[in-house]
Amino acid sequence: MSDTHAAHFSINNIPYGIASSIKRPIPQAVTRIGDNVIFLAELVNKKPFANIDMTALPSILQGSSLNAFAALSKGIHAQVRSAIQATYRSKLHHESAEHIKDVRMHLPVVIGDFTDFSVSAYHVQNAPEALFGVRSLPACWNNFPMGYAGRCSSIYISDTPVSRPLGQYLEDPAAKEKKVIFGPSRSLDYEFELGAIVGRPVAAGTGVYAKDMDEHIFGIVLVNDWSARDIQGCEMRDPLGPLNGKNFATTVSPWVVTLDALRPFEVSAAPHTQPVVDFLEDPKSITYDITFRGEIVRSGVSTEVCRVGFSHMYWTFRQMLAHNSIGGCPLNTGDLLASGTVSGSEKSQLACLMELTMNGKQPATLSDGSALRYLEDGDIVRFTAVAGDASAGVGFGECVGTIKPAPRM
Amino acid sequence: MSDTHAAHFSINNIPYGIASSIKRPIPQAVTRIGDNVIFLAELVNKKPFANIDMTALPSILQGSSLNAFAALSKGIHAQVRSAIQATYRSKLHHESAEHIKDVRMHLPVVIGDFTDFSVSAYHVQNAPEALFGVRSLPACWNNFPMGYAGRCSSIYISDTPVSRPLGQYLEDPAAKEKKVIFGPSRSLDYEFELGAIVGRPVAAGTGVYAKDMDEHIFGIVLVNDWSARDIQGCEMRDPLGPLNGKNFATTVSPWVVTLDALRPFEVSAAPHTQPVVDFLEDPKSITYDITFRGEIVRSGVSTEVCRVGFSHMYWTFRQMLAHNSIGGCPLNTGDLLASGTVSGSEKSQLACLMELTMNGKQPATLSDGSALRYLEDGDIVRFTAVAGDASAGVGFGECVGTIKPAPRM
Repeated sequence: MSDTHAAHFSINNIPYGIASSIKRPIPQAVTRIGDNVIFLAELVNKKPFANIDMTALPSILQGSSLNAFAALSKGIHAQVRSAIQATYRSKLHHESAEHIKDVRMHLPVVIGDFTDFSVSAYHVQNAPEALFGVRSLPACWNNFPMGYAGRCSSIYISDTPVSRPLGQYLEDPAAKEKKVIFGPSRSLDYEFELGAIVGRPVAAGTGVYAKDMDEHIFGIVLVNDWSARDIQGCEMRDPLGPLNGKNFATTVSPWVVTLDALRPFEVSAAPHTQPVVDFLEDPKSITYDITFRGEIVRSGVSTEVCRVGFSHMYWTFRQMLAHNSIGGCPLNTGDLLASGTVSGSEKSQLACLMELTMNGKQPATLSDGSALRYLEDGDIVRFTAVAGDASAGVGFGECVGTIKPAPRM
Repeated sequence: MSDTHAAHFSINNIPYGIASSIKRPIPQAVTRIGDNVIFLAELVNKKPFANIDMTALPSILQGSSLNAFAALSKGIHAQVRSAIQATYRSKLHHESAEHIKDVRMHLPVVIGDFTDFSVSAYHVQNAPEALFGVRSLPACWNNFPMGYAGRCSSIYISDTPVSRPLGQYLEDPAAKEKKVIFGPSRSLDYEFELGAIVGRPVAAGTGVYAKDMDEHIFGIVLVNDWSARDIQGCEMRDPLGPLNGKNFATTVSPWVVTLDALRPFEVSAAPHTQPVVDFLEDPKSITYDITFRGEIVRSGVSTEVCRVGFSHMYWTFRQMLAHNSIGGCPLNTGDLLASGTVSGSEKSQLACLMELTMNGKQPATLSDGSALRYLEDGDIVRFTAVAGDASAGVGFGECVGTIKPAPRM
């Protein structure tokens, strides 16, 4: 790990992840304070943990995913958080810790299902404008959060390289005669998103109201929903939504930031102009003050491409999870529900290249002087996010991927 | 199990499943001959298995899913199949067997990802006609099989009841002013399909050509892709495809019929009128001679609602898996890739109610005298399929679900 975001991980954060190292080769549950990665199973014999009435806790923290821990009650999560903070408030227990540069981070949870929503009013209007020259809101925009089922087998942990996908796409989308060709994607894009990870499961047929849904959210991660716009555009001429345009790779950040850590950064969610159905009604209507920063590194030179908040998103995670469960569909521990591209109203706030470069037709200029239409082989895409202002000490670390050439067929 | 399809399971079939019983409470690998369910881990000390060079086989067959077995090479699968047949050709080993009525069947594999394709040329044209009065082929029909990612958490084994989903839909789709309301679906439907289960995995970025894909197909099951047409229709006004209209339930049959069992029933696949891209090219162009029979039981009276083949489907499983892998997406052992509704050209061959009743506008009459628009609470939907003619002894058993009322909110 080259991640140097120590300031994101103050004692106010206490995120969870899965790590291994040369000393501790079996992946297991960790938290992070500054640059110290703390192996939790080794910590639970400390005094502050003595009050937690749960004999299975050490073995749960030895698991190779956070799923069993995530499924515990919010009460236990709060106790573990307090105990970690109490242990470390006085001093760092170096015997349980390793430096971030000495550990390898793994996917924090086993993800059984992944739903990708699309709840930025800017993104959903900018996208058709970039593609077809027409701005319009989705038909059901005011009724429920719009989303599709994504692919789980290609969800990777941050720092995993992303190979340019192969696929079929229109040689020239503007041509009258549509010719479909096959090859490496010519319009590889990123999408900066947040994702909620399900904690306590929601059983089949027990749809939970948005107002009660925080009980089922373990925490939040960064999500890069890599997209091949040409492949996606070709398959979305038909009505079943994206498939190969999205399923080659999705990158998530290694640290799950809990709702407990985000509580001080609660802000009002975007107001709704139309009444919503009861199960989506949310009197508290809370989201989080989170700021993203995205950059592209090309030829070794970094260019900031996006700086945007999150609180303008039209539907909250509570509402996204409620919608996903209401028909009877079970939400299992570890399921990932992502927000869709977090684009805001300004050009500097656009969180994917399709919007920023109008589908490549209006290139931007990177700091190395090159033109930015879509991603080139060798480009590094990195984004981070912090809650409140940077000094608050609660951040998500980073979500990063380097573009590799398409495989040869 | 009330399943009485003994004739589907001759010694020419040898399907695989996962079963438990009072005597054998831990779910484990089984096969079936007639009405006898044979617990395989107990069989492997018999003489015909002695030649199989695989010490791990007994423990693999004790697993609670078939995934580890499915991931083995086709060579091992062929040896196990031969050894089972050799053991049972002379006589049934009753000490390893229980009657089908005494066992409980479980999901045969852990399904990490589910793609539902739609490759019947009749279904894809009938559907828009039933909904909008217009017949048209999808834009990419000749280029690649069209599909969407489905939900894994709500895939159930045959015989699991299906609760009517709740959701949002248009009060009157024909009204000029679109009013979205919330409630139990009014147009609950079935879709009769086949599904391929991935055996040997396809690693990320190693997209496999259609012609070589049989190596990665463990076998075939029946799939009922239950659909709430009103909820689906409402969300598909937007471009991301179906979500809640499909994710409340999918039912699969318990017996995985292998490609080895289906080999005698290979027939030519539907001809393509346009050349396809290399990786979808399939000189052998093989599919299977399989016949479906579907029935609805209402008020205790059965009505046949569908009798249709499979070989008219425009894309083969080999091509569906190739398309799903080509962009770089890994296919893991246990993944399910379904065919979409298998409707044929005749009214008696329509494999969902949206087509059969023109979205409820042209009701059929059931044997109990009632009108069939969409499914009613209490309806039982059952379908079966056999390879070749029924006397060939290779069938899929049945895939059945009973409709329960929507949960109260």
